Amino acid sequence: MVPDGHSPSHSYDYDLLILGGGSGGLAASKEAAKLGAKVAVLDYVKPSPAGSKWGLGGTCVNVGCIPKKLMHNAALLNGNYVHDQPHYGIGVTPESIEANYGMTQDNTAATHSWDMLKQNVQNHIRGLNFKYRVDLREKEVTYLNLLGKFVDKNTIETVDKKGNVDTVTFSRCMIAVGGRPTPLNCEGGEMAISSDDIFSLDRDPGKVLCVGASYISLECAGFLRGIGKDVTVAVRSILLRGFDRECAKLIGEHMKDEGIVFREEVVPTKLEKVGEKIKVTFSNGESDEYDTVLAAIGRSGDTSKLGLENVGVAVNPKNSKISAKFEQTSVPNIYVIGDVMDGCPELTPVAIHAGKALSRRLFGGSNQAMDYRNICTTVFTPLEYGTVGYSEDEAIAEFGEETVTVYHKYFIPLEWSLSPSRGSHQGFCKAIVNKHTDKVLGLHYLGPNAGEVMQGFGTAMKLGCKFEDITETVGIHPTTAEEFTTLSITKESGEDAAASGC
Amino acid sequence: MVPDGHSPSHSYDYDLLILGGGSGGLAASKEAAKLGAKVAVLDYVKPSPAGSKWGLGGTCVNVGCIPKKLMHNAALLNGNYVHDQPHYGIGVTPESIEANYGMTQDNTAATHSWDMLKQNVQNHIRGLNFKYRVDLREKEVTYLNLLGKFVDKNTIETVDKKGNVDTVTFSRCMIAVGGRPTPLNCEGGEMAISSDDIFSLDRDPGKVLCVGASYISLECAGFLRGIGKDVTVAVRSILLRGFDRECAKLIGEHMKDEGIVFREEVVPTKLEKVGEKIKVTFSNGESDEYDTVLAAIGRSGDTSKLGLENVGVAVNPKNSKISAKFEQTSVPNIYVIGDVMDGCPELTPVAIHAGKALSRRLFGGSNQAMDYRNICTTVFTPLEYGTVGYSEDEAIAEFGEETVTVYHKYFIPLEWSLSPSRGSHQGFCKAIVNKHTDKVLGLHYLGPNAGEVMQGFGTAMKLGCKFEDITETVGIHPTTAEEFTTLSITKESGEDAAASGC
Ligand SMILES: Cc1cc2nc3c(=O)[nH]c(=O)nc-3n(C[C@H](O)[C@H](O)[C@H](O)COP(=O)(O)OP(=O)(O)OC[C@H]3O[C@@H](n4cnc5c(N)ncnc54)[C@H](O)[C@@H]3O)c2cc1C
Ligand SMILES: Cc1cc2nc3c(=O)[nH]c(=O)nc-3n(C[C@H](O)[C@H](O)[C@H](O)COP(=O)(O)OP(=O)(O)OC[C@H]3O[C@@H](n4cnc5c(N)ncnc54)[C@H](O)[C@@H]3O)c2cc1C
Ligand SMILES: NC(=O)c1ccc[n+]([C@@H]2O[C@H](COP(=O)([O-])OP(=O)(O)OC[C@H]3O[C@@H](n4cnc5c(N)ncnc54)[C@H](OP(=O)(O)O)[C@@H]3O)[C@@H](O)[C@H]2O)c1
Ligand SMILES: NC(=O)c1ccc[n+]([C@@H]2O[C@H](COP(=O)([O-])OP(=O)(O)OC[C@H]3O[C@@H](n4cnc5c(N)ncnc54)[C@H](OP(=O)(O)O)[C@@H]3O)[C@@H](O)[C@H]2O)c1
Repeated sequence: MVPDGHSPSHSYDYDLLILGGGSGGLAASKEAAKLGAKVAVLDYVKPSPAGSKWGLGGTCVNVGCIPKKLMHNAALLNGNYVHDQPHYGIGVTPESIEANYGMTQDNTAATHSWDMLKQNVQNHIRGLNFKYRVDLREKEVTYLNLLGKFVDKNTIETVDKKGNVDTVTFSRCMIAVGGRPTPLNCEGGEMAISSDDIFSLDRDPGKVLCVGASYISLECAGFLRGIGKDVTVAVRSILLRGFDRECAKLIGEHMKDEGIVFREEVVPTKLEKVGEKIKVTFSNGESDEYDTVLAAIGRSGDTSKLGLENVGVAVNPKNSKISAKFEQTSVPNIYVIGDVMDGCPELTPVAIHAGKALSRRLFGGSNQAMDYRNICTTVFTPLEYGTVGYSEDEAIAEFGEETVTVYHKYFIPLEWSLSPSRGSHQGFCKAIVNKHTDKVLGLHYLGPNAGEVMQGFGTAMKLGCKFEDITETVGIHPTTAEEFTTLSITKESGEDAAASGC
Repeated sequence: MVPDGHSPSHSYDYDLLILGGGSGGLAASKEAAKLGAKVAVLDYVKPSPAGSKWGLGGTCVNVGCIPKKLMHNAALLNGNYVHDQPHYGIGVTPESIEANYGMTQDNTAATHSWDMLKQNVQNHIRGLNFKYRVDLREKEVTYLNLLGKFVDKNTIETVDKKGNVDTVTFSRCMIAVGGRPTPLNCEGGEMAISSDDIFSLDRDPGKVLCVGASYISLECAGFLRGIGKDVTVAVRSILLRGFDRECAKLIGEHMKDEGIVFREEVVPTKLEKVGEKIKVTFSNGESDEYDTVLAAIGRSGDTSKLGLENVGVAVNPKNSKISAKFEQTSVPNIYVIGDVMDGCPELTPVAIHAGKALSRRLFGGSNQAMDYRNICTTVFTPLEYGTVGYSEDEAIAEFGEETVTVYHKYFIPLEWSLSPSRGSHQGFCKAIVNKHTDKVLGLHYLGPNAGEVMQGFGTAMKLGCKFEDITETVGIHPTTAEEFTTLSITKESGEDAAASGC
């Protein structure tokens, strides 16, 4: 890092001002305060175009990870109800067995109350918002519910809810304003909602079109379908760009099996109101009507009204994000972390980790930089996807076909095996390995509890794990994670990688 | 290993005869056959004292891991039904919301059909038995459904179902006969069933007494309670001897919360038939009546009728197990793997791993010994427990109080957080660390999906993981596994390790 001019004897209001109280900002603020810095966090939620608002904590808590995972869990629980419970004897009576010739059928779909789900999810979030406020107070971080904008490199102008303007000064600043959903840019695009709105929607979403084919679109399509909605996904090009192609394909097939409709290689060209519905015309000329159109076509840095031009911090015009080296912007006392940093993976633990590490460098004498390599991640689609390291395609592109070998395996999760309607569903795992060094380049897992399975392997990857280290690990039986420990079939062998018995 | 006299040009029937077609024997047989050896597996199931019988595959598939995990899953699914589903909107109608002032209550217990569960579990097992037979045939292993007994160090006498006697000869032998439940040794003890019988019980277990306080007893008590039975556990001394004391205590408290009755520091002294019930008198003079008494008081090596005296292989009289060095018994061409080997952790993947590694040494020129250290394991109690390495108590005993530091944390799994009746339940994790070297000595996790969470950390432990490697791993959010990556509070600090917000 470049010297930033900070001295403990400055005369500004704060040692550190953090712009944005999301995952990254909050973590960084508490860490800096713990190290003795005088810290303030400015957090202000601008309503979404559709009018949704929320409390302290940023995207993850309010309109991201937390409501998403809870709704994903609703879908899993509903799947348990429909597919599994009767076969495990739940809700089954001697009479119902007899009526079905000894075998119960699946449950038909349960009634599902969107209102109950949404309300309980929102109540949980309110609880978290409150905890965050208490937490900041306890950790002696000043929380300012104000919208901020740079005046100069040590001054921010603030505006409160009522429009009152003030200023606050600081020796150092961290920009942690995150991003916002990219709006749908076609005729009538303003009728679409985004992930900022879906989790608090005060009517049943009904028949839904999800536009986009990455994380957010597919996760939302997945949980909406899982609680019984009629769901279509509009895919511009491919599913899950940037992820392993084979895994993306399996996720798509599984979603189709669950009844999600994919409209391939189309974008919406026009949205119009037809009675209570929204009629969507696609680029191939086809059209259909939906109750809800959810645009999840990417996120842009939330920098347009930050006054960055007043201090000379440059933004990438493509995504409105701020570029930095070791989280330091072109203005040495102004730092950036989390989603708004150009090139940063948009993930909560990344923002948290980078924020804490930066605070330790700024106020704790640490020189440990954030390590952005081999970050494990999970996509909470109906068939969950956990991954760390290279995709097969990337590995081959980087190391060459002759260096890369792939061990792969399909498996049937034991928990699905009593349920006939899960019959066609399988889990899958693979390890991408450097043939010459035996080093693991990437791990991929499709199946239940993908995030739980992948986390520990993330630590193993940090330790430079070889393939042999995994296969020499004694498995835990019966789990799905143990499938990694018994990988033995390479793709090049041409042997069958199909699921076999326990 | 000591030279065992094997030469490829011997004149015996088989290069390798394996006694016992369980987890270890089957894996070893297929590995040896793949390496070109002529292999036979002898497997014969002696009925339990209560008359239960089963097919090929040994304990794990028929009367162990597989039926246990499926019944544990039944209990989890039932818990989802009771505690979670209504709060996620499942089975909720607008009318039911109104009737409950805006909040649904938990579901009352669902009807549960033991018969359906048992039948589907048994059907699944039949399918696996069949797959194993096909698998052996495909891998060119001869399967002999015969009971074996040593005549001399190269000959086994076999008996078939009809009592026909024959012999089979071999150059090398692997003993993989596993163990059987220790019978309850008190007046009327024969009225108790064991884990050999519970998973195929052809009547509803009703009110159950589980005798014993280790793995098997607590897991069975857990799933029986989870599907709605009235369950009591008779504890002779402590819960889960050999495991971390703090974790064992939390598991016990959680089981009590779920409605399981613990009778502490008692053993049954007498069982007697009273009508349809079994009256059990305990060592403290108290008594009660049960429909089913399940004895799970340990397992002994299944060696009593093996004719080991004919070849001079010594057994440990305490547990009837065979001692060995690198899986080689005192008779050089006779090897032993799995549960029947003295000192071997009684776990399926251990038997499999040891068996494969041994076959590779015997027929593949390998010299890699089985590594029995840091084996990760999971206890499938209602609050699942995953662990690898030292318990806190063991670590302190071995390294001294001044060397060991413990990082710990309670957490509320997100998936439980919408369900008021889960309110008192928490997850817990801790890392036992060598203060001087930062090396992780042990990891402990209580919460959902414990096996899935622990597996990857098992690989990390194999790699000599330091505590910093875990906390420098970027988490996967939202998971419970990520709790390990944010451990920061040590026990000695006295700081509060209570669960906080997301
Ligand atoms: C639907 C969805 C699902 C997701 N799921 C996951 C997941 O499962 N796992 C995962 O790891 N990540 C997930 N993410 C990504 C994760 O939410 C983000 O990576 C994370 O929130 C980024 O944190 P941050 O601190 O950079 O920004 P944010 O959390 O976005 O916080 C920025 C804060 O700054 C405030 N702000 C903005 N401008 C100003 C200003 N001028 N003045 C004052 N305050 C301002 C904002 O209101 C906001 O509160 C998901 C995202 C979405 C949208
Ligand atoms: C209720 C229960 C739950 C369990 N849960 C788990 C778990 O969740 N995870 C886990 O890892 N482990 C678990 N275990 C332990 C696991 O089942 C054993 O560790 C594993 O089966 C041992 O394998 P093995 O090959 O040594 O012996 P076994 O699987 O017991 O196989 C031995 C075979 O030899 C046969 N045999 C015996 N004598 C003769 C003879 N004279 N001639 C021919 N055949 C013979 C037997 O019939 C049997 O088929 C559990 C055990 C029980 C009882
Ligand atoms: N589980 C998690 O950890 C999690 C969950 C959700 C989100 N996140 C984070 O949030 C970030 C944002 O996610 P995202 O899914 O919104 O965005 P994204 O990853 O940037 O993907 C955008 C998607 O929308 C499509 N698209 C872009 N412009 C379009 C247009 N005009 N019309 C139709 N389709 C268009 C893209 O298609 P093309 O492929 O054709 O460009 C792509 O499929 C992710 O990158 C991730 O880091 C993480
Ligand atoms: N999830 C898994 O991986 C899994 C699951 C199940 C089993 N297993 C394997 O199977 C093995 C056997 O398990 P287990 O639980 O049956 O046996 P165990 O671990 O040997 O424990 C025996 C239990 O019974 C008690 N006991 C012994 N004799 C008794 C008597 N006469 N009266 C009353 N109580 C008595 C012991 O109490 P004291 O403490 O007082 O001696 C102890 O609680 C385990 O060690 C394990 O390796 C693995």
